[in-house]
Amino acid sequence: MYRTHNCGELRIQDVSKSVVLSGWIQRSRDLGGMTFIDLRDRYGITQLVFNMDANASLCNEARKLGREYVVQVEGTVTERSNKNPKMPTGDIEIIVEKLTVLNASLTPPFTIENETDGGEEIRMKYRYLDLRREPLKNNLLLRHRMAFEVRNYFNMNQFIEIETPVLIKSTPEGARDFVVPSRVNPGQFYALPQSPQTFKQLLMIAGYDRYVQIVKCFRDEDLRADRQPEFTQIDCEMSFVHQQDILDMFEGMVKHLFKTVKNIEFSEPFPRMTYDEAMEQYGTDKPDIRFGMPITEITSIAKGKGFGVIDSAAYTGGICVHGCSEYSRKQLDELTEYVKRPQIGAKGLLYVKYGTDGSLKSSVDKFYQPDELKKWADAIKAQPGDLLLIMAGEKISTLKALGELRLEMGNRLNLRPKDVFKPLWVLDFPLLEWDEEAKRYFAMHHPFTSPKTDDIELLDTQPGKVRANAYDMVINGTEVGGGSIRIHNEDLQKKMFSLLGFTDEEAQRQFGFLMHAFRYGAPPHGGIAFGFDRLVAIFAGEDSIRDVIAFPKNNAARDVMIDTPSEITAEQLKELSIKIDIR
Amino acid sequence: MYRTHNCGELRIQDVSKSVVLSGWIQRSRDLGGMTFIDLRDRYGITQLVFNMDANASLCNEARKLGREYVVQVEGTVTERSNKNPKMPTGDIEIIVEKLTVLNASLTPPFTIENETDGGEEIRMKYRYLDLRREPLKNNLLLRHRMAFEVRNYFNMNQFIEIETPVLIKSTPEGARDFVVPSRVNPGQFYALPQSPQTFKQLLMIAGYDRYVQIVKCFRDEDLRADRQPEFTQIDCEMSFVHQQDILDMFEGMVKHLFKTVKNIEFSEPFPRMTYDEAMEQYGTDKPDIRFGMPITEITSIAKGKGFGVIDSAAYTGGICVHGCSEYSRKQLDELTEYVKRPQIGAKGLLYVKYGTDGSLKSSVDKFYQPDELKKWADAIKAQPGDLLLIMAGEKISTLKALGELRLEMGNRLNLRPKDVFKPLWVLDFPLLEWDEEAKRYFAMHHPFTSPKTDDIELLDTQPGKVRANAYDMVINGTEVGGGSIRIHNEDLQKKMFSLLGFTDEEAQRQFGFLMHAFRYGAPPHGGIAFGFDRLVAIFAGEDSIRDVIAFPKNNAARDVMIDTPSEITAEQLKELSIKIDIR
Repeated sequence: MYRTHNCGELRIQDVSKSVVLSGWIQRSRDLGGMTFIDLRDRYGITQLVFNMDANASLCNEARKLGREYVVQVEGTVTERSNKNPKMPTGDIEIIVEKLTVLNASLTPPFTIENETDGGEEIRMKYRYLDLRREPLKNNLLLRHRMAFEVRNYFNMNQFIEIETPVLIKSTPEGARDFVVPSRVNPGQFYALPQSPQTFKQLLMIAGYDRYVQIVKCFRDEDLRADRQPEFTQIDCEMSFVHQQDILDMFEGMVKHLFKTVKNIEFSEPFPRMTYDEAMEQYGTDKPDIRFGMPITEITSIAKGKGFGVIDSAAYTGGICVHGCSEYSRKQLDELTEYVKRPQIGAKGLLYVKYGTDGSLKSSVDKFYQPDELKKWADAIKAQPGDLLLIMAGEKISTLKALGELRLEMGNRLNLRPKDVFKPLWVLDFPLLEWDEEAKRYFAMHHPFTSPKTDDIELLDTQPGKVRANAYDMVINGTEVGGGSIRIHNEDLQKKMFSLLGFTDEEAQRQFGFLMHAFRYGAPPHGGIAFGFDRLVAIFAGEDSIRDVIAFPKNNAARDVMIDTPSEITAEQLKELSIKIDIR
Repeated sequence: MYRTHNCGELRIQDVSKSVVLSGWIQRSRDLGGMTFIDLRDRYGITQLVFNMDANASLCNEARKLGREYVVQVEGTVTERSNKNPKMPTGDIEIIVEKLTVLNASLTPPFTIENETDGGEEIRMKYRYLDLRREPLKNNLLLRHRMAFEVRNYFNMNQFIEIETPVLIKSTPEGARDFVVPSRVNPGQFYALPQSPQTFKQLLMIAGYDRYVQIVKCFRDEDLRADRQPEFTQIDCEMSFVHQQDILDMFEGMVKHLFKTVKNIEFSEPFPRMTYDEAMEQYGTDKPDIRFGMPITEITSIAKGKGFGVIDSAAYTGGICVHGCSEYSRKQLDELTEYVKRPQIGAKGLLYVKYGTDGSLKSSVDKFYQPDELKKWADAIKAQPGDLLLIMAGEKISTLKALGELRLEMGNRLNLRPKDVFKPLWVLDFPLLEWDEEAKRYFAMHHPFTSPKTDDIELLDTQPGKVRANAYDMVINGTEVGGGSIRIHNEDLQKKMFSLLGFTDEEAQRQFGFLMHAFRYGAPPHGGIAFGFDRLVAIFAGEDSIRDVIAFPKNNAARDVMIDTPSEITAEQLKELSIKIDIR
C-alpha cells in the first residue's frame, strides 16, 4: 500500500503516530515560514504542514506542488493549534518528513470545488475531473449504498437476482430499440432490452417466484429532458401474489431504503390513490403531495352566467393558493403567461382575489357578482386572504394545465422542499389509451398487463373503459416505479394483442415464445420496475439523473469524453454484412 | 398471496395447521382409494393426499391433474404414517380440502426431473421448463448467493460499485466488438464493452480508489467451446496499491466465497507461482494442482544416445504416472493417439515402464539401456510400479503437450475430483507475445498493463523478455481471474502503444481520452477481473458455463427460445441509416 491511513480517518487519538498518506493536492497555502497543504482522497481531507525552519528543502519542494498533483507523504500526526471543527480531521495535521510526487498534474480546466467554475460541456469532457468534486462523489457513494441496500432487502425476502440477456430480440411495440448486427448470422440483428419484461415472466413460468435484478436497459428515444439512452432499473417480479401483496413488498423496499440510507422512518402505509382521483385532484398521474392545493371542479356552479369561456367549457376548476390574495397584476400576468406556454398550452387563466376583508375581486367581475364568486370560494375551500386560480376547457387538458399551475405555485411558495419525501401509490390505471393519430389503442403500461377481472367483459364493448391491475409509485411528483399484475393465460394475451392491432402472425413472430410458454403451467404473477437513476436522484436531491450516473451521455446521446458514437472501419462493416446508407 | 406456506417449509411441528399451498404437480400416484400428489415449488416438494372415502368428487378432480399443472390447495397438515427421511417435508402430508386449478399444462416435451430425458436442443428451446429442474435451479440459487457475497465482501472493504456505460466506443485491439448503429448520429456506431477497462482506470483517476462492478461484457468471437457472446465479470480496480496488496485483497474475496457459500476454509495463503514455473512444471499457465505429476526436463540426460527424435529436440521431458507400470499396449496406444490429436498436435509419445520388480522397459529400448532409463526415472522421481511418459521436440509446444497429457492422466486416474478446490496465483506473465503471422507484438494481458520496473529498460532492446506486473488466479486448471498493475504515465503508455504497432494517430483516436486523463494526476493503480460465469460453474461442479446462466445462447450465438438474432424491419434499417450488404 502507498498509505497506512486514508485522508479522512485521522483523529486526535492518533496524535504522535507515524503515518503515510497518499492523495491529491486540494489547495496549498504558502505563509513564508510554513506551507500548509490540504491533501484529498475519497475519504476526506487532511492538512499537511511543511516548516521552513525544520526542513527548508522539503518545504521548498512542497511549495512547487500544483493543484491535483498526486503525492505520498510520510510524517507524524500532531495536534493542531488552530483546530477546524468543520472537518472530521480538523483536530490534527501531519508534520511531513518525506514527500514523494507520484504523478504531476496540469492545471485542471475548472476548479475541483463544490461550487466549480466549469460549465456543463467542459465538465462532461473531463468527467474524470468532475467526478473528483464532492457533490458528485457523494452521489455515487449514495448510489452504491442504495443498490447495496436494495439487494439486502430482497435477499432477506428470498428474492433471487437473476441476470437476463442483453442481446435479445427487437420488438417494435414501445420505444425504438437499439440493435446489434450479428456477424455470424448475416442480415440478422439482436436488440438491446428496453426492459427484461418477457424474461422475467418466463422466470415466473420457470418457478423462480421472487426475482429481482438491477439491470441496464436501453431506449433509442428522441431527445427529451433528462433521459439517457441507457438507464438502470430495479426490475422485480413475483408469483402467486395479488396486487396487494406486491404493493406491500415494494413499499417495504422503499421504506427500507429511506430507513437505512437516510434514516427516515415511514411508520404509516404509503397513501394509495386511484388514477381517476389523481387526475381529478392533481391533474396528473404522478401527484406531488408534499403540499395540498388540490384541484376542485366548479363546472356546475360557474356555468350559465353568460361568460362564454366557461359556458362553452366541458370543465371548469380551480385551485386555492393560500395567502396570495394580494398578488399584483404583474404576478398574475406571469402566471397567465406560464400556463399559455406551449408545454402547457392553456388559453388563459382566471383569478378571484378573496381579500382579507372578505371582498371578492376577479378577472370576470363583468359576469359574476361577489355572491356568485363566494360560491366558488366556498367550493374550493378558500379563506379570506387566498387567491383562486381558475381554468376552463376540455376536461383532461384543463386538469393537466391546472396540475402544472399547481406545481408552479408550489415552487413559488417553497412548498416543495427537497428534503421532504412524500411517496404514494397510484392505482387502477386505464388498460388502454386511444391514439388519435394512429387510430388505435396502445397499452398504457405494456401489452402484458392484466385487466381487472371485473372489467374483462368490457374488453369487447368499451375497451377504453377497462381498468388495469397496474400501479405506479410516485415520490414528490416523480414516477419512480410502475408495474402490474400480468396476463398468464394465452387466450387473454392473444385478445390483448389483437386489441393493440397485432395480426396473429405478428403477435406470434414477436411474442410466440411467451404465449407458447403460457401453455405449460404459468402461475399468476406480477411485478414492478423502479427507475433506479431517478430514485437515486430523488434521494440525492438532484434534479437531473446525470448527476447520479458516473459517465452519462449528453442530450445528443453522445459521450463527449470518449467521443462516441464514432465511425467504425470498413473491415468491421464488411464483416457485419452492413453498409452505411445515409439518405 | 395464493399461499400461506411454500412447498418446502412444513414440518412435524406444523401438524394440524390449516394451510394454503400453490405449486406445480411434480407427480401423481393413484392408488384407487387414495391419490397422492407431489406439489413442487422453488422451495421444495410437499405431498398432498386425496381420499376417495372422505371426498370422492375432490379425489376425482385430483386424478385429472396432469404433470406441471399449477394448482392451489387448502388443507390440513397431518403426520405421515409412512415418513420419507430423504425429504425435508417428509414427515408430513396435506389432507386436501379444497383444490383450485390456477393453470393447466400441456405435457412437457421432456421430464422435469434431475435426470431428464430431453436432449440439449429441446431443453434450450424450452429453457423455462428446463429451469424448473432442480440442478439448474440450484445453480441459479448458487449464482445469486455468490453475487450477493461478492458484494458483501467488497462493501465491507470499502469498495464502491459503480456502473460504467454499455454504449461505448469500438477499439479494434483485442477481440471483435459488437456494435450498435446510432440513429441520431448517422454513420456512427457505439460498441458494447469487452470490459470496462478504460472506465475503471478513469474512475481511479477520478479518485474512487476501490471500485467493483458485476457487469455484463461482450465479445463477438468465433465459436469456441463454452464461450458466450455475453458474459459476466466481477470487475475490480484499486489505487495506491502494489501487486501484493491486490493479490491479498482478491484472494480474500475468493476465500470469503468458499467460506460463506461452500463452508470451505482456506487458512493458508494460496500458492503463488511464476508463469515460467507454471509452464516448466505443468505445461500451462493455468495449472490444475489438485494433483502432482509435474513435468520434469531430461533434455541433457537423454541426449546423445543416437535416437534422432531426442537428439534433434530442443527439449525432452516427461511425467511420472504413479502405479501404472502395467499399462497395456492398448492403453499406451490410446495415449499416443490422444497426444497426436490436432488439438494437441504432438508427433508421438515415448514410455518407460518401471516395473514393481525394478525392471525398466521402454519404447526406446533400442537406444537406451536400463541404466540410462534408470537415470530418467530418478530425474523424474519415479518409483518401481510407475509409468514414465516422455515427449521431445520444440520446448514450448512439448511442454504444452505434456501438460495436456498430464491432465488426461489426471482424469483417467480420478485425480481431479469436482469437490476439491485448489486455487493458486500465477505471476510474472510476459508483457508481450510475438505473433508470427502478424509479425508484431500483441499485449499478453492488454495494452494498459505495466511492465515490471526492473524490466522497463528491456522494452527498447528485448521487448519479448519484459515481464509484466500481471497475475492470474487459477482454480482447478481454469483461469478464473486475471489482472495487472496498470500504466499510469502518459509516456510509458505511448511507448506501449507504439510497441503494439499503433501509430500515434491511431493511439490518440482510440485511447486519447485515457492518455489525456493521465496528465491530470493519475494515481498508481491496478486491478483484476474475474469471469463470474466460470467461477460459479466451478463452485457448482459444472463443466459448462451454460449451466449457470439463466438464458444462454447456443454455439451459433443464437437464443433458440426467443429465436434471435432475427430480421428487423426496413423502417428500422432506414432510420439507422444502414443497409444489409451480404456478399
